Amino acid sequence: MKIIVVGASGTMGTYLCNEFEKEHQVVRTDRGNAELPLDITSPESIENMYRKVGAFDALISTAGPSFVGLWKDLDDAAFRKGVEGKMMGQINLVLIGQHYINPKGSFTLITGALTYEPQKNFANASAANAAVEGFVRAAAIELERGIRINAVSPSVIENSPHYFPFFPGEIPVTMKQLEYGFRKSVFGANTGQIIKPC
Amino acid sequence: MKIIVVGASGTMGTYLCNEFEKEHQVVRTDRGNAELPLDITSPESIENMYRKVGAFDALISTAGPSFVGLWKDLDDAAFRKGVEGKMMGQINLVLIGQHYINPKGSFTLITGALTYEPQKNFANASAANAAVEGFVRAAAIELERGIRINAVSPSVIENSPHYFPFFPGEIPVTMKQLEYGFRKSVFGANTGQIIKPC
Repeated sequence: MKIIVVGASGTMGTYLCNEFEKEHQVVRTDRGNAELPLDITSPESIENMYRKVGAFDALISTAGPSFVGLWKDLDDAAFRKGVEGKMMGQINLVLIGQHYINPKGSFTLITGALTYEPQKNFANASAANAAVEGFVRAAAIELERGIRINAVSPSVIENSPHYFPFFPGEIPVTMKQLEYGFRKSVFGANTGQIIKPC
Repeated sequence: MKIIVVGASGTMGTYLCNEFEKEHQVVRTDRGNAELPLDITSPESIENMYRKVGAFDALISTAGPSFVGLWKDLDDAAFRKGVEGKMMGQINLVLIGQHYINPKGSFTLITGALTYEPQKNFANASAANAAVEGFVRAAAIELERGIRINAVSPSVIENSPHYFPFFPGEIPVTMKQLEYGFRKSVFGANTGQIIKPC
């Protein structure tokens, strides 16, 4: 299976690439990638990435920029970070990628527990996550040729301990649990699901 | 109580204004209002509206433009209708309005059943609704001075029969049920809730 991993050099992306390429062809992309650069905030950049990659079987997104900071600093301009990044960036990966993906292929996006369990400083991510989840449910009934779509929604992950203080009481998700969440989406048959790896 | 109703000339807004002004001071605003015009896609227009109105006790939003149409026509540009309208329009009503609203005031936004029950042609609304709901939960733990925030999430409403064919199996919400949903938010004590009027 040919799997595109968006955000391949990040904490999640690095782990998932290493695991999945044991058995599959993994195509790594992210903003700084020399061979296959991708700026998810640009539909043109997304189109260029897909054009270079050609047909593929699955896309995994681990890319989710959003504004993290004090509520008093959250205005329309700050909110755009999550709107253009985690929300529209991932939505455009699907709207554009549906024309390149093989029949019965799958898209797996990343959201997070903040959708339902808000934390201070993360309202932008709560909105962006929720938007992606609403989109996933709606896209699942629209996509054709057997193409599936799901989201993986972890809490804070064990390899990002710098986030722990912002998530009191949240039990970190292990990288293996996270990987299994993505496995459920990519290799299973479900669609329109929000998968909680725990 | 001084209550601003956004989208005052729409189907929901007209009904709610007529009911609430029996007992409260209702301030009507919408895009075409001669005295108090409001374009929710413009933060400047929102700021101007609040400046004219001055201090108030509650804001009710019934304004939710989004793209309705075939999936094949839903690209980044089309998606912006819901992003700028139902999503950021309503979010900016809160981010800006929090500086004008009285202590213990409330914001009540409009979402809809499409968040969880998608229908063909409405993926844009599913994402925008969900974003607003995620924002409502997050804003509830950030807003200060006892300010509350909720969303009312109806299915198709009885006074919009032209939408019925798009919502097979959805039992229309009566206008009275819708009104009671808003009453629960405005006159109750809850915050961070998604109220389903049924």
